[in-house]
Amino acid sequence: MLLCFQWLLMFGVFSVKRGYIMREVAVIGCGMTKFGELWKLSLRDIFVEAALKAIDDAKVDRVASMYVGSMTPGLFVGQEHIGALMADYLGMAHIPAVRIESACCSGGMAFRLGFFEVASGHSDVVLVGGVEKMTDGADVTYALATAADQEYEVYHGVTFPGLYAMIARAHMHAYGTTREQLALVSVKNHHNGSLNPNAQFPGEITVDQVIKATVVADPLTVLDSSPVSDGAACVILASMDVARKMKGQAVKVLGTGAATDTLALHARKDITKLEAVKRSAEAAYKMAGVKPADVSLAEVHDCFSIAEICIIEELGFVDKGKGGPFTEQGHTALTGKIPVNTSGGLKSKGHPVGATGVAQVVEIVEQLRGSAGKRQIENAKIGLTQNMGGSGASSVVHIFSNA
Amino acid sequence: MLLCFQWLLMFGVFSVKRGYIMREVAVIGCGMTKFGELWKLSLRDIFVEAALKAIDDAKVDRVASMYVGSMTPGLFVGQEHIGALMADYLGMAHIPAVRIESACCSGGMAFRLGFFEVASGHSDVVLVGGVEKMTDGADVTYALATAADQEYEVYHGVTFPGLYAMIARAHMHAYGTTREQLALVSVKNHHNGSLNPNAQFPGEITVDQVIKATVVADPLTVLDSSPVSDGAACVILASMDVARKMKGQAVKVLGTGAATDTLALHARKDITKLEAVKRSAEAAYKMAGVKPADVSLAEVHDCFSIAEICIIEELGFVDKGKGGPFTEQGHTALTGKIPVNTSGGLKSKGHPVGATGVAQVVEIVEQLRGSAGKRQIENAKIGLTQNMGGSGASSVVHIFSNA
Repeated sequence: MLLCFQWLLMFGVFSVKRGYIMREVAVIGCGMTKFGELWKLSLRDIFVEAALKAIDDAKVDRVASMYVGSMTPGLFVGQEHIGALMADYLGMAHIPAVRIESACCSGGMAFRLGFFEVASGHSDVVLVGGVEKMTDGADVTYALATAADQEYEVYHGVTFPGLYAMIARAHMHAYGTTREQLALVSVKNHHNGSLNPNAQFPGEITVDQVIKATVVADPLTVLDSSPVSDGAACVILASMDVARKMKGQAVKVLGTGAATDTLALHARKDITKLEAVKRSAEAAYKMAGVKPADVSLAEVHDCFSIAEICIIEELGFVDKGKGGPFTEQGHTALTGKIPVNTSGGLKSKGHPVGATGVAQVVEIVEQLRGSAGKRQIENAKIGLTQNMGGSGASSVVHIFSNA
Repeated sequence: MLLCFQWLLMFGVFSVKRGYIMREVAVIGCGMTKFGELWKLSLRDIFVEAALKAIDDAKVDRVASMYVGSMTPGLFVGQEHIGALMADYLGMAHIPAVRIESACCSGGMAFRLGFFEVASGHSDVVLVGGVEKMTDGADVTYALATAADQEYEVYHGVTFPGLYAMIARAHMHAYGTTREQLALVSVKNHHNGSLNPNAQFPGEITVDQVIKATVVADPLTVLDSSPVSDGAACVILASMDVARKMKGQAVKVLGTGAATDTLALHARKDITKLEAVKRSAEAAYKMAGVKPADVSLAEVHDCFSIAEICIIEELGFVDKGKGGPFTEQGHTALTGKIPVNTSGGLKSKGHPVGATGVAQVVEIVEQLRGSAGKRQIENAKIGLTQNMGGSGASSVVHIFSNA
């Protein structure tokens, strides 16, 4: 039996890990739009732009199916059923296509499910995209709040800035995290974003500007908060036997992990802990056979400055409670020991919610290919993406290496 | 190489068909709520009731992950992010959970993606459910119309009854399908539904009643149309090695097929043809190694009476254009050669849109187990489900047999 498996492994047909029988999967192409207020483009235009870039990059002439991550196109632009719609507008009507929703980690979850389709052996080449059109006049705060618990949170008037502000206050109280440390997350990410041509707000900012900006929910100001954005990002996933033909292009998916937590913040024992992030990371590390110290760089879900601090703790880059000082010491900067959000993150690059998880993968692919331009990390070998939904009720982590 | 594969096949680890390397998957448990106006239950209550029934039926104490099909809980009850929400309310916060949307075939697509996760080898036991809460006061016609093309159809005032009425008129014109033949679809499905304790409208109706009922969009009346419903349905999927321990319970998934078409009706060459249904069926038949003539019974997407007539043609049960006479001759009745919608279908059982695709699987599982009560088909060996989104822009087909 063992010999038999080894024989198949030599042919790269699939890998056997901890009882799994899965084909190996790689990203062979990626593309994204500029993030921002794309008023001249409709939802479908935005997606098609990113999809065509990814298809061109992968040099494929067809894909077997499509996964579209999007949080709430129904509330933003009155359009559901966008799996089929996007296949149609890409000129690919007839291929299977579906939309995936998991609040702000819709894109990351779409990536995970596309991965399963290729890993299962059902399809060799699959397109995974994410898209959101948020600036067309919908009530964005209401639409985003549908990711929180309507019956126990939103009904009482709380929305996401308030939920994250409570997490920030609790973290400051429990661990001594300072207002300046929170601000430094935004300062770092705006610096990185200033090197990214696709970023919505590429301008540098200072700690003083962050602290003195308009308060959204104390202690968080508008400069602790990711913006409202339009945008799309797409990648092409392929089995390793297809990917091997794309020398220098392919980036291997080493692991996927996903987890959930209570939707409502009040149901958690300790709101400074993001249990779903921790568990999704553990699952991905285990599948990848990788430790936090092995990771060269990470894209994480900095929807608010406090989120990045909590997340780098849960990912194991630093001990619980030490995320603030770790950031202050520059360890997560472009030149630090574990660069975080080299793309500019949600804060500076922008956060079209359904697109974010896929855009994170685009950044890691660019970095591992060595094509990230002015923000390139030297010797990037292993990259990680962490995409989150709600106030941490959903999290999905992926780990990548050079193929 | 061949010998090696055969050796693994003997152990039931996976099957090799047409180049696929996939684990075999079975349904080992199922449950659903009664469909109807469930005013005393919220969205989460409804889902949890169906999920607990499926878990009890499967006799499992845990599932590795959850897929929740739902079309637009954001527009119906202001709640997105229901993958994590349902995991939380099931007492399973922390397992991966995601929502799948593909308009009215959200449930069928959720089933397909859950199938891939198990087939890939990543998980052994997965819960797939579908849920919708439509009667809580939302503008149902608007919400459902978000599955059509907003820019090219809905903007001009057309909604689904109008789209299907156009298909009906075209079918009558091209093939001589009669008003009575359309009505007979509803009459048959209400008869079947009268034998189903979970049906929303279990009453028998007559051809005369259908034709003289309130016109919704000529020629379709309210009795040609599926109702607005609340409800949920869940199934437990497992790898065959887990399923084999559930003697008499397990129903094997032989094939899955999905396809799309243009979202807007005007972009199709012939609106009597549902190309996505045809292609999804072809893919599922091919994977299953089954022909239309092998199918013992089918649950199909009779959102309007005309839809069932078109669908049985595309599934290959009868030649194109002959669906009307075929229905009139009783071939799709409980005692006919290919019983269709033994559950009562969407028309009589009800159509909580996201739940429908999973409820179809529940009916096939009950029939193949021989536990369908008064509507049991004798010698049911192979069952098929066909779930559709929009005016045929998405379709997903599954084929099942006794394990």
